[in-house]
Amino acid sequence: MTTPFRIALAGLGTVGGGVVKLLDANRALIERRAGREIRIVAVSARDRTRDRGVDLSRFDWVDDAATLSSRTDIDAVVELIGGADGPALTLARATLARGCAFVTANKAMIAHHGLELAQTAETSGAALKYEAAVAGGIPVIKGLREGAAANEIARVYGILNGTCNYILTTMESEGRDFADVLADAQALGFAETDPSFDIDGIDAAHKLSILASLCFGTAIDFPAVTVSGIRNVIAADITEAAALGYRVRLIGLGEADGHGLFQRVHPCLVPLGHPLAHVAGSLNAVVAEGNFVGRLLFEGRGAGEGPTASAVVADLIDVARGETGPAFAMPVSALAKSSPAPAGDRRGRAYLRFTVADRPGVLAEITAAMRDAGVSIESMVQRGADTAGRVLLVMVTHVCPERAVTDALDRLDGSQSITGRPMLMHILDI
Amino acid sequence: MTTPFRIALAGLGTVGGGVVKLLDANRALIERRAGREIRIVAVSARDRTRDRGVDLSRFDWVDDAATLSSRTDIDAVVELIGGADGPALTLARATLARGCAFVTANKAMIAHHGLELAQTAETSGAALKYEAAVAGGIPVIKGLREGAAANEIARVYGILNGTCNYILTTMESEGRDFADVLADAQALGFAETDPSFDIDGIDAAHKLSILASLCFGTAIDFPAVTVSGIRNVIAADITEAAALGYRVRLIGLGEADGHGLFQRVHPCLVPLGHPLAHVAGSLNAVVAEGNFVGRLLFEGRGAGEGPTASAVVADLIDVARGETGPAFAMPVSALAKSSPAPAGDRRGRAYLRFTVADRPGVLAEITAAMRDAGVSIESMVQRGADTAGRVLLVMVTHVCPERAVTDALDRLDGSQSITGRPMLMHILDI
Repeated sequence: MTTPFRIALAGLGTVGGGVVKLLDANRALIERRAGREIRIVAVSARDRTRDRGVDLSRFDWVDDAATLSSRTDIDAVVELIGGADGPALTLARATLARGCAFVTANKAMIAHHGLELAQTAETSGAALKYEAAVAGGIPVIKGLREGAAANEIARVYGILNGTCNYILTTMESEGRDFADVLADAQALGFAETDPSFDIDGIDAAHKLSILASLCFGTAIDFPAVTVSGIRNVIAADITEAAALGYRVRLIGLGEADGHGLFQRVHPCLVPLGHPLAHVAGSLNAVVAEGNFVGRLLFEGRGAGEGPTASAVVADLIDVARGETGPAFAMPVSALAKSSPAPAGDRRGRAYLRFTVADRPGVLAEITAAMRDAGVSIESMVQRGADTAGRVLLVMVTHVCPERAVTDALDRLDGSQSITGRPMLMHILDI
Repeated sequence: MTTPFRIALAGLGTVGGGVVKLLDANRALIERRAGREIRIVAVSARDRTRDRGVDLSRFDWVDDAATLSSRTDIDAVVELIGGADGPALTLARATLARGCAFVTANKAMIAHHGLELAQTAETSGAALKYEAAVAGGIPVIKGLREGAAANEIARVYGILNGTCNYILTTMESEGRDFADVLADAQALGFAETDPSFDIDGIDAAHKLSILASLCFGTAIDFPAVTVSGIRNVIAADITEAAALGYRVRLIGLGEADGHGLFQRVHPCLVPLGHPLAHVAGSLNAVVAEGNFVGRLLFEGRGAGEGPTASAVVADLIDVARGETGPAFAMPVSALAKSSPAPAGDRRGRAYLRFTVADRPGVLAEITAAMRDAGVSIESMVQRGADTAGRVLLVMVTHVCPERAVTDALDRLDGSQSITGRPMLMHILDI
């Protein structure tokens, strides 16, 4: 096939600009691997005048991205606008309904609407590809959907948000506080002006719900993901975790067993012996456990112009070569509906950090609540008031049902002994 | 497509047995993902009577594997016999020439004959798949050939042999000598009765040559791989490396730049800050550096029944779904011939360990040879005679051309000051 594979780009932000640059820089190589040239025919974005560092005059400029879906001179639409709904979703629905291939980096849209879009794609015979939506340039979608396809996967988990990982690892390496490092991250472009999506774990939750579907053969269920971000992690948590032999990471974890589908994004203590403890800065990493392959780890740059563009173009090369398998590894009708597995039954160890009043009876009250809830304490540290006059009490529980820990915290709710909210982190004993 | 995808298995050793078990254990899941049942129709091996722990009576038994290539009742032949030549190659040639898909775990055969087989496959339109040939269950062939397809890859390297990695990491964790750990490894099944292929680096070299072709778009050139194994690594090397902040690993490294294709398997000192320093036991890991994606790491179980079977069946699922792209990412005619890049020009730091005579003048002689060859010494340790009465001299050089180090060693060749062969390991400053 020597006719060019023609594409339209919707969205010319960081990633859109990166795709243009990549197709220019690696043109000949991509043509050898795709078997044909991949050629941008049209582009669409909100601001025509912004300088993106690439020559866009070669392409048709389209003001309304929605019109791209009805063009007959293209083989694929690449959506890099973002946002679960709005113009991205409109474009996705129309493009796929028309039978045209659709390649996206939009994790929010896939998390919320991926099933519907996959069904549309299946009905029309179009390809729906979204490697760039999870873990940036790391080919984890392909790796799990195809490379691990022979396995029953019991668990998938990882570091799915580079902003959070950058913040946590910088807090650790430089001994600084959260707000301080967040401000720097924003200045350096590792975090948005409104960083909530990232630091509150929503972005990681989008990605986890996609990975869970692929790994477990279940329909995406984003609303069922339990989400806690890193907003309340303080420098002392990082230090105490290190003293205990752990690093703090925001981990997205999915498990499927007889009890239903478990999905959670939460700050965790990762043992130094675990590969994820060594994934630093803005890197991402995904671990899957298959019943024949054992544990697989994929690690790399999870965001940014180059890595995301790399994933987008890898998808384009696949489509150009005629590789158009089902978006979620099997027909939508074969994806199992799942019921969320309750966290309460889960057993594990917890890290708890209380900010306490410096007066008699505090330790007695807290340890009594633990006892009454059936939580046995493995270790405990109180170091005396810090430079800010705060007294922190840090505990690690023995393995116990998570509901017991929740129960203990409920018993302490409203206690005069405790200032602010206790910090709970799960210990990743896997 | 609801007709079964029918396969014949040639070879019923560890991996062959594993494929049968996997297809039984994950039958329903594989059918959902492949879109059709994957069904073994015929099997062939040398010993019909051996108990492999699976019921083979369901399948046609064939004594002569070569006849499998002409069966019209199969869609793919799976070759798990091994060996670069002999029955595996005969079967590969005949199967592909007939236009029948061929899935293999045979790294030696692909390293030696992969180009020819890919050409045959291209001519007949058959699929040639070999994910199981490199890094066991880790989907690194797919990950690099497809996931990283949009990148110009400058470098690929990793831990490609689980036997060597198990031995080196056990020497480290238990402070034991090579011969001792090798004997244990053989008893545990991590090393063969004749372990040369593994410990002399040949197996790693096969795999490196395959990865290099995929990453650099060059024709496989196995004979051009420079190979040194771990046979001469002693406990003191491991200890000294650790004291310097490194772990010893057998690393296969490929680079392509204006100077040609560089391929080498060699024991290396890996800095503790590098992910490969934390890949322990019999795990494998592959790192690639792409010009847009940056650094990618794939890690997992590189050998064994389960992981290798997982890779074989992942290939079968691809073929069953009609995914039959070119074996080396592009038509054979598009693969560039390469000239081997000379190692002498390479610049880097070296670890040198001399076993020396305990008498005057030894240090003077060795340091003079370094000086005369233009090698500047970064650090040096001589600890006095060990319990075996040996005196070891350990050096780390500053960055210098590799030929300077070779020159220094040539100058010392035959010296009365040195017992046995000096150990040279390259320091992985990447």
